[in-house]
Amino acid sequence: MRYVNKKLKPSLESKFSDLARSLNKKNKIKYSLGLGEPAFNTPNSVINEAYKAMKLGFTRYSNPLGLKELIDKIKYKSKKENNIYYSGNSVIVTPGAKMALTLALKSILKRGDEVIYFSPCYPSYLPQIILANDSVKPREINLEKKDLSLNFEKLKEKINSKTKAIIINSPHNPSGRMLSFSDFKNLERILKKFPKCFLITDEIYEKLNFSNKKHISAASIRSIKNRTFTINGFSKSFSMTGWRIGYCLANQKLVKKMSLIQQHINTNVPTFTQKAAIHTFKINLKFLKKYNLNLLKNYNFISSEFKNHKNIKVLNSDGGLFCFIDISNLRLKSDKFCYKLLKQYAIAATPGLFFGNQWNNFIRISLAIDNNKFKSAIKKLKKFVNNLKS
Amino acid sequence: MRYVNKKLKPSLESKFSDLARSLNKKNKIKYSLGLGEPAFNTPNSVINEAYKAMKLGFTRYSNPLGLKELIDKIKYKSKKENNIYYSGNSVIVTPGAKMALTLALKSILKRGDEVIYFSPCYPSYLPQIILANDSVKPREINLEKKDLSLNFEKLKEKINSKTKAIIINSPHNPSGRMLSFSDFKNLERILKKFPKCFLITDEIYEKLNFSNKKHISAASIRSIKNRTFTINGFSKSFSMTGWRIGYCLANQKLVKKMSLIQQHINTNVPTFTQKAAIHTFKINLKFLKKYNLNLLKNYNFISSEFKNHKNIKVLNSDGGLFCFIDISNLRLKSDKFCYKLLKQYAIAATPGLFFGNQWNNFIRISLAIDNNKFKSAIKKLKKFVNNLKS
Repeated sequence: MRYVNKKLKPSLESKFSDLARSLNKKNKIKYSLGLGEPAFNTPNSVINEAYKAMKLGFTRYSNPLGLKELIDKIKYKSKKENNIYYSGNSVIVTPGAKMALTLALKSILKRGDEVIYFSPCYPSYLPQIILANDSVKPREINLEKKDLSLNFEKLKEKINSKTKAIIINSPHNPSGRMLSFSDFKNLERILKKFPKCFLITDEIYEKLNFSNKKHISAASIRSIKNRTFTINGFSKSFSMTGWRIGYCLANQKLVKKMSLIQQHINTNVPTFTQKAAIHTFKINLKFLKKYNLNLLKNYNFISSEFKNHKNIKVLNSDGGLFCFIDISNLRLKSDKFCYKLLKQYAIAATPGLFFGNQWNNFIRISLAIDNNKFKSAIKKLKKFVNNLKS
Repeated sequence: MRYVNKKLKPSLESKFSDLARSLNKKNKIKYSLGLGEPAFNTPNSVINEAYKAMKLGFTRYSNPLGLKELIDKIKYKSKKENNIYYSGNSVIVTPGAKMALTLALKSILKRGDEVIYFSPCYPSYLPQIILANDSVKPREINLEKKDLSLNFEKLKEKINSKTKAIIINSPHNPSGRMLSFSDFKNLERILKKFPKCFLITDEIYEKLNFSNKKHISAASIRSIKNRTFTINGFSKSFSMTGWRIGYCLANQKLVKKMSLIQQHINTNVPTFTQKAAIHTFKINLKFLKKYNLNLLKNYNFISSEFKNHKNIKVLNSDGGLFCFIDISNLRLKSDKFCYKLLKQYAIAATPGLFFGNQWNNFIRISLAIDNNKFKSAIKKLKKFVNNLKS
C-alpha cells in the first residue's frame, strides 16, 4: 500500500495518548470520558445463545452472506423500522460495521475515483478509503464549526463526475448530530445530478437516540435507494463491540459484489455469533430506552453546567455516545487541554486534534458512563476550565 | 476494484456446482469428498473457555495485535516447534488465516509490484493479491504435473527486481505435498539474489502431517527470516474453521504495519475467541496423532486401490486434508468427471478445473472423513472409473 507508511497513522499518537496509556495501565484514570462503547455488558441471554450454538456445532465454515434466519430478521427490521426494502439477497453480514464499510468501498472504487467524506468523522473513514484503493482521491469537507451541520453549498462545489461515493453518518460521531429530513432533501437534490455517485450511510448509532428526532435512513428515499449502502450492526445497541458483527444492506447486485470479496478475505462471520445476533431481535428493547435516558441525563447535565459559559460551548447532540465541545475561547488547544485535564484530574477526554488539525479547538466527551460518575467528572471539568486563563 | 467484476469469480461456478448445491440442499450427497475442514468438532473445553470468557466480559474492544497471553503462547510455540524467533511485537492475531494473508499483502504491495504464486493453490490466493492492490501483477507458476513439485528453474525465470512477494504453502492444498529441506535450500539461494522480495508462507496445515517428514518453517532459515511472513492458525488443528482466528508471525516492523491496517478494517479478533485459542495450548495433542492416523489410513486405502491402475494416478500426499488425482488417461475432463460421479453415485469430489484450466485433468479428494465411509466411497469411485471408456 502506497499510503500505509505515510498516511496511515495510529489514531492515538500524541503526548496525551502516551500519558493516557501509561495511566490506564496503572489503573489511574478515574473518569474515562473517551469510551466509544456502551457501559452495560452484552445481555446474558445473547451470551447463552452463542454458547448453545457452539455446542450444537455452529463452529464451521458457512456462506459469505450470512445465515438465512439472520438475514431475514435484518430485512424485516429494516423494512419495518427504516422503511428500506430490497428484493433478493440484499443483506451481507460482516465481521463488524468497519468491514461492511471496507467491502462497500472495495466493491465500487476504481482508479481515478473520488470519495467525499465530512470532517470531523470516525477516524477510520479516511484510512479505509485509502486501504480500499490507494489510487482513489479522498475529498474532505468540513462540517460547520458552529453546529457541526452539513453545508450543502460546499458539497455542491466538491462533487463532480469523478465522485464515486459520499460517506455520511447519523447519529454522528463525534458530535451526536442527526441528519434531518431537510438534510436528506438537499442531499437527494444534489445526487440527482450525479447518477453514478453512491451513498454510504453509517447508521451504527441508530438505536442510541435521546432526542425527539426520528432516525432517517437514506435508503428510505426512493430516488437514491438503489445506490445506497446502509451500514449498521449490533455493537452499539447490544454492547457487542468486541463480538465483531455488523451488516450492510443494499441492492442485491451490490451485495453480490461485496459477498465475492468477503468470501476471499473473511470467509464468513462465525455462525455462533450470528446465532447470538438473531437472538437480539427477541430482546425487549426497554433496556435501550433506559439507556438512552441515561445518555440524555448526562448530556443535559453537561449542557446546563456550561450554559452561557464564556469559554465552553457544548454543541447540540441528538444521539450516539458523544457530545462535542467548543473550547476555542481558551488559549489551550485540545491536545494540551486534554493532557492537563488528565494529569490534574485523572479525567480522560478525546482531543479534537484526533479528528484533524482543524478540530484542535474542540474536545469530545463520551456520555456513556454512570450518571453520578459523569456528574463528578463534569464538575471537576468545570473547575479545571474556570481555573484556566482565557 | 478494477478486477472485481472481471477476475473475481465465485470459486464454484459450474454445472457441477449447481448440481452439488441442489443435491446438498436436499441432503442427497452420500459421500462428501470435497470438505476442507476436519471431521471432528471443536473440542468441548475450547467452547467452554470461550463461554467463560464471554461471561467475564471479554466482549469489548481490544488492541489490534491480540491478547498478550495468546501472543506469548504463539511465540513460545513457534520458537520451540518451528525454530522461529523474533524479538518484540512479532505476532498479530487475525480473524482467520485468510485475513493474515490479506494484511501481509496489503502491508507490502505497491503499484508496479509483482507477486509470484504457484498453481494449483488455495483458490483465494489470486483474488487476495488483486484485492490487496489492483495495480499489482500476479505471476503464476505451474507446479510439475507429475508430482506437484516446485520447479526452481521456472522460478528463476519468473522472479525479477519487481517481485515483491512469493507465496508458498506446505503442507500443500490441494496436493498434500510438503516442501523439503532441499526445496528450502533452493528457495534460499534464489531469494539471496533478490533481497527486496518477501516470502509469505501459509502453514495452516502444519499439524495435519501423516508422513514421516518434518514440517519445515521458512522463517527458521536465518537468511530469509526477516522478510518472511508465517501464516498459521487454529482452524485446521482444532477444528475451529468457523471461529475465524489465525495469526501471522513476522519481524516486528512488518507486524506494526499489519496492525495499523487491522485496526482500521477489523479492530480486533473477539477476545473470547482469543481466550479459547489460548486454551488450545493446554490440550493434549494425542487426539491429533489419532486424527492424522485416520487421514493416513484413508490415503493408504485410496493409493492401494488405484495402485498400477491404468487410468488413475494418486499423487503423493504428506499432510493437509487432501490428495490430488491424475485422470488424464480418461477422456473425461474433471468437471464432467465430477458431475457424473455426483449424479451416478452421490459422491462429491472437487474438479481440478476449480484450480485453473490447466488442472482439468485432475481431481481433489478430501481425506477428512470417517474411514469406513471413505472406503465405500473409494470402492464406488473405482467402479465408476472402471465403467468409463478410456
